[in-house]
Amino acid sequence: MITGKNHIGNKLSAKGTISHKTINPKLNIQNKTAFIEATSEEIEEAVTLANDAFRIYRKVSGEKKAKFLNAIAEEILALDQELIDTYTMESGLPEGRAIGERGRTIMQLKSFANLLANEDWKGNTFDLAIPDRKPFPKADIRKTVIPIGPVVVFGASNFPLAFSTAGGDTASALAAGCPVIVKAHEMHAATSELVASAIIKAAQKTGMPNGVFSHLSGRGPVVGSALVSHPKIKGVGFTGSIGAGRSIFNLASQRPEPIPVYAEMGSVNPVIITPNAIASRSEAIASSYASSITLGSGQFCTNPGLILTIEDENTEEFIKTLAEKTVGIEAQCMLHPNIKFGFAKSSESVVSQPGVTTVAKLKEELNNNFAASQIATVSGTDFLANPKIHQEVFGPFSIVVTSKDQNQLIEIIEVLEGQLTGTIIAENKDIETLSDVVEALTNRVGRIIFNGVPTGVEVCPAMHHGGPYPASTDAKFTSVGTDAIKRWVRPISYQSFPLEMLPKGLQK
Amino acid sequence: MITGKNHIGNKLSAKGTISHKTINPKLNIQNKTAFIEATSEEIEEAVTLANDAFRIYRKVSGEKKAKFLNAIAEEILALDQELIDTYTMESGLPEGRAIGERGRTIMQLKSFANLLANEDWKGNTFDLAIPDRKPFPKADIRKTVIPIGPVVVFGASNFPLAFSTAGGDTASALAAGCPVIVKAHEMHAATSELVASAIIKAAQKTGMPNGVFSHLSGRGPVVGSALVSHPKIKGVGFTGSIGAGRSIFNLASQRPEPIPVYAEMGSVNPVIITPNAIASRSEAIASSYASSITLGSGQFCTNPGLILTIEDENTEEFIKTLAEKTVGIEAQCMLHPNIKFGFAKSSESVVSQPGVTTVAKLKEELNNNFAASQIATVSGTDFLANPKIHQEVFGPFSIVVTSKDQNQLIEIIEVLEGQLTGTIIAENKDIETLSDVVEALTNRVGRIIFNGVPTGVEVCPAMHHGGPYPASTDAKFTSVGTDAIKRWVRPISYQSFPLEMLPKGLQK
Repeated sequence: MITGKNHIGNKLSAKGTISHKTINPKLNIQNKTAFIEATSEEIEEAVTLANDAFRIYRKVSGEKKAKFLNAIAEEILALDQELIDTYTMESGLPEGRAIGERGRTIMQLKSFANLLANEDWKGNTFDLAIPDRKPFPKADIRKTVIPIGPVVVFGASNFPLAFSTAGGDTASALAAGCPVIVKAHEMHAATSELVASAIIKAAQKTGMPNGVFSHLSGRGPVVGSALVSHPKIKGVGFTGSIGAGRSIFNLASQRPEPIPVYAEMGSVNPVIITPNAIASRSEAIASSYASSITLGSGQFCTNPGLILTIEDENTEEFIKTLAEKTVGIEAQCMLHPNIKFGFAKSSESVVSQPGVTTVAKLKEELNNNFAASQIATVSGTDFLANPKIHQEVFGPFSIVVTSKDQNQLIEIIEVLEGQLTGTIIAENKDIETLSDVVEALTNRVGRIIFNGVPTGVEVCPAMHHGGPYPASTDAKFTSVGTDAIKRWVRPISYQSFPLEMLPKGLQK
Repeated sequence: MITGKNHIGNKLSAKGTISHKTINPKLNIQNKTAFIEATSEEIEEAVTLANDAFRIYRKVSGEKKAKFLNAIAEEILALDQELIDTYTMESGLPEGRAIGERGRTIMQLKSFANLLANEDWKGNTFDLAIPDRKPFPKADIRKTVIPIGPVVVFGASNFPLAFSTAGGDTASALAAGCPVIVKAHEMHAATSELVASAIIKAAQKTGMPNGVFSHLSGRGPVVGSALVSHPKIKGVGFTGSIGAGRSIFNLASQRPEPIPVYAEMGSVNPVIITPNAIASRSEAIASSYASSITLGSGQFCTNPGLILTIEDENTEEFIKTLAEKTVGIEAQCMLHPNIKFGFAKSSESVVSQPGVTTVAKLKEELNNNFAASQIATVSGTDFLANPKIHQEVFGPFSIVVTSKDQNQLIEIIEVLEGQLTGTIIAENKDIETLSDVVEALTNRVGRIIFNGVPTGVEVCPAMHHGGPYPASTDAKFTSVGTDAIKRWVRPISYQSFPLEMLPKGLQK
């Protein structure tokens, strides 16, 4: 049920007087529920409850946590059409996307539940005693990992399910043994509350401690900041803009006890297309990239916003084809009027830079939230001279850079900020000349793709979704795939412990 | 050779006008070499060279890096008596300790060389393609790790060899593929320069790129800060005080591109001794702890500064025995007049707090740098009321807290800051009543020891030397043992890559 109230563990609470409503971006109207911002008192209550829950939850077995995660998946499915309708109403995204993203969310929860079937994910290490070692005996030392404590999760605007309330951050933190407090995203607070109620129902049904999950509404700089600053909070998961992510990181680093912030932020996801690839399959590449650029109205963190080519006789024609195919795809609604406004503003800023030319642009509709997709182009020299063109434009926009040769291409790659992904579109005959390009690109990205598109992030153990700053605030950790659990644990060594006092996984 | 100059890769350089000399703490006189502080120009030169070296060094095979590390070990041994004499002259530590620490340094270098024999340490992960998966085919995704870039290492005052110039931080970073710039510790700059010259000789002999290692002298807030702030530096290793470590962490977090700081800082290393243990072996425990408290003049990061007991009829006698045995051990020289001064000041501050009583104290000699060891005691209630008593006193000082019962003991553990280690001294019959104590302690420490002493940090895969803040700035990583290499790499995924373009370890 959508109540507009805060969920402090199993209790509904609405002590505050400030509230906000979400928007239906397709109809450009406000939705009806008012979401009451959590007060300082409610924030304190939720954190204290999470800390109390941690004393119990950190000792809960993998098997029981797996039952909890699977129960969350079931309760989310039980929300049925109400969830799908609320999702589409608040996001402007189509029903098919809602169903697909729900499927991904369920699958993520189940993949963490499966991970807990044994202790492999902990990487337990054993150094047994050597009592007769000279000059000193060697003690028995065994290492495992333990959860860090209560964590706060901030959901993403662009994935109201899979990267939000019960998304990868929450699923991995609960799997690790950390209670979670979600600060509801203001753009999809009702979707968030529905999912929160499913999590709390699952916690009750599977006997988890009260406070293992709480859900608070309110503004980021008020409720979010208070949560991040609270001494009992031990970590933060975030997906969103560089501005918001960085301010959370700053707050967390300046605490008396700094805490880790895993913020997955902006990326232009450079794509390098070789002249040979363009010569042999210009049409096919243009079609596949037109789809990738406009997928979900360009609102993916792996959206390819920067295409790097080396100029030759086919480049101009390729750019024209790509532009035509991109604007040939029907405009789609963006997530929120603010996002549509931000898209218009940032794309205009890029195309107004010296040397940047718009190749094609969909007609802009001023009275709705549909995005006008756009392809622009610039020379390698102008691109290198102007860092303003290097920034992410969140939406269906891509700029094609024509380098004069491979050296300039490499120079461009090297000046880019950190990226989630980098892609190379090439022919087999290119391979032997590409090693310097690959080397430069690996040094800037968290995932490198050959002859594919960066959108579509597989949930699997080998996935790394993160990258050098500002792609993420900690390039060592992924927010997608089972390794995401590593963000919420820390190692501990047991020295000379009697077997019966060791955690089960260390007894051997 | 000790020149007092900076080593910028293979070149000696001394463009500056500011210099400092080290102290012989035993004789309380200045040593003769003046160490010239690196200028901004020299810092820029060293960082640029490290960045150029990184382009080559990141591609050097594990086998070749292993040869480099083993060659460093050989060159350090070749420094022979000059190194031992310089070490004792600058640290006041005895020759036996110098030889022992050199052995540990050599062993650490070799253990990282051995680690590089195969790719196991990278944890390479393989998710092979499933072309016929529905609804979408699954791409081939393979994950490995790559080095983060040039790093800066700050050595420790208390381990001029094993935690300094060629210590664990440098060895692990070089093993990972990261060039290293060491900011020489001002208290042992000559020892540091000797070791630096060994590293550079080894780099030349094994064909490593110029700039894979540089060594700069100067003040932390000047040269150190400039290095940490430089955009081409990608990580920092530090061992030392909370004040210095935190200021480096703050600087690194506030950069436009924040970088990770692995600072291993202060700890009081609580030791819990049960009444049954005291009843059955008071003398033996007191002897072993008197040695541990005074080991290396109490200048170990794992020095047991806080002993927690539950008061009964034997407690008073035990504290008396411990105190007598501790002050019965001959006074030893501290590392530096500033450290002796800091020790005197911080131990005085603790014993002047309400409820704190000195049980025994060695006579203080004002005209030398020998430490007056000291044992104090306080009730659990007074301890809980006053966080000033919770802080580390760097030196041979320990405070015994007498709790009124196990609940108060647990309360005390829970209010402690993060710790490198926690130790439990108990009898077998205590085991079944100890689980809450163990649980509370694991939540505050990086390593937990049963019936042992925290000093003596084994170098092995299962070792975790780190802990919740302020024991270290990143509780997820260790500075001792082979896992220390993980600080200097980040994951990267390769998607749909042709086999021949993959790094060797991912080709299968």
